[in-house]
Amino acid sequence: MAGDAALSMRLLRSLFDEWHQPTREPEDVTYAEESVGGVPGIWATPIGADATKVVLYTHGGGFAVGSASSHRKLAAHVAKALGVTAFVLDYRRAPEHPHPAQVEDGVAVFSALTSRGIAPQDITTIGDSAGGNLAVAIPLALRARGLPLPGQVIAFSPWLDMENSGETLVTNDATDALITVALLEGMVAGVLAGGEVDPKTPLANPLYADFTGFPRLYINAGGAESLLDNATRLAERAEAAGVDVTLSVVDGMQHVYPFLAGRAPEADAALEALAAWYRV
Amino acid sequence: MAGDAALSMRLLRSLFDEWHQPTREPEDVTYAEESVGGVPGIWATPIGADATKVVLYTHGGGFAVGSASSHRKLAAHVAKALGVTAFVLDYRRAPEHPHPAQVEDGVAVFSALTSRGIAPQDITTIGDSAGGNLAVAIPLALRARGLPLPGQVIAFSPWLDMENSGETLVTNDATDALITVALLEGMVAGVLAGGEVDPKTPLANPLYADFTGFPRLYINAGGAESLLDNATRLAERAEAAGVDVTLSVVDGMQHVYPFLAGRAPEADAALEALAAWYRV
Repeated sequence: MAGDAALSMRLLRSLFDEWHQPTREPEDVTYAEESVGGVPGIWATPIGADATKVVLYTHGGGFAVGSASSHRKLAAHVAKALGVTAFVLDYRRAPEHPHPAQVEDGVAVFSALTSRGIAPQDITTIGDSAGGNLAVAIPLALRARGLPLPGQVIAFSPWLDMENSGETLVTNDATDALITVALLEGMVAGVLAGGEVDPKTPLANPLYADFTGFPRLYINAGGAESLLDNATRLAERAEAAGVDVTLSVVDGMQHVYPFLAGRAPEADAALEALAAWYRV
Repeated sequence: MAGDAALSMRLLRSLFDEWHQPTREPEDVTYAEESVGGVPGIWATPIGADATKVVLYTHGGGFAVGSASSHRKLAAHVAKALGVTAFVLDYRRAPEHPHPAQVEDGVAVFSALTSRGIAPQDITTIGDSAGGNLAVAIPLALRARGLPLPGQVIAFSPWLDMENSGETLVTNDATDALITVALLEGMVAGVLAGGEVDPKTPLANPLYADFTGFPRLYINAGGAESLLDNATRLAERAEAAGVDVTLSVVDGMQHVYPFLAGRAPEADAALEALAAWYRV
């Protein structure tokens, strides 16, 4: 249904709020709504978590759909695995708010967290799909302003390529269950203001960014997904700039398969691997 | 949109899962998924709650839409206010599963809770709209089988009248923001199997039930809603049978206005009044 251009944005947003359904309710986590740096969102606080460490979670949904609610459970599973708290942003969405509104909202939250006394190195930017793009772009924007960077960055199946130029869009088209080029094109038009923003803008398309001095980076993707080579190209580009990169690609897995946390052993294993990386 | 017959049940269910949005995330509550008596659902456990007391929450949505997820936050607000735990059932929905599947699922959960050692009088059946009907019908079904009854019953804006005969469907039509007769007719057709089940069946339409020996009953409704006289007729019928009934109708409020818990003072006041009644 998501590929049907006749569906309104209102309806698409409603449908994508079902994105929480594949994720099991994580146990022993409490929630609270708050605006942080002027950006609304949901805190997920696992019982016994280290409250001085925060994952700043930017949800996926092509910059246009998805929400803190649709990603609450996934962010809480991540927070539990890492033993930290999570703040899931309800950043301003396209097309009403094109790039760089989403990045600006992430920077605002990051700055507000540091103003509260959270050490920058104890903040992790993390996101999935378009939110994985934001998790990478937020530190790039912070660096451009001379601000301190997060200690680490995590991207689940990041969608970075605003030119839709990736080979796996073709080679994995038959195995990908979720992504269509038509859908991506609509999302690009929204976030790039119908072509007003150059698709090679580094903060909109980090495949064109300079990764010098970027924090350690964990990338997770599914082997069956059409956006796979966004993950591999990001890893290559960051590694070429000397970044400490870990890339995990699991054969046969779909786009943002950690969404199956609590239901599929592959998703739980992905979060365990992530936690092991985080604790180093 | 919900009144558009061209929308599929799949789409309606997706839209109605947004029903959680008016409710603020309640703080200091944890969640867990479990099947109880063979019926899946979500436990909401406020920190410090009395785990020996349970509200068995049947969600609204015309017996056809809504879910444990859409009502998780509302049930958690109720549980917090009452200082108890909540189990929100994902009962089988119409039209695939017509009456009495929903009532049977509620009975199965109730029986499983008592088998676990929860005292019947420490269980409260509660629900909103069609789920308010079920909260009333479940004790009636238990009584018919000679089983112990819950200690109390709570109905938010119950929808009982399967004949759509209520006066307030007409007199409050202009002020009701949510309910249309067309929508109700579609829901009736679903739950009553296209007319195979008599709309005067007491377990499907408790306005025809005998309330002798029924537990103490709290009914909350909005003064502006089209289903208001479901609440008032239920109160009258139960009182006539000697039941201890409390009816709260707040002027100007809409259908199931406790959904605004954490956002509207009227909803929070309704839960405080409910808690005061519960503690007596």
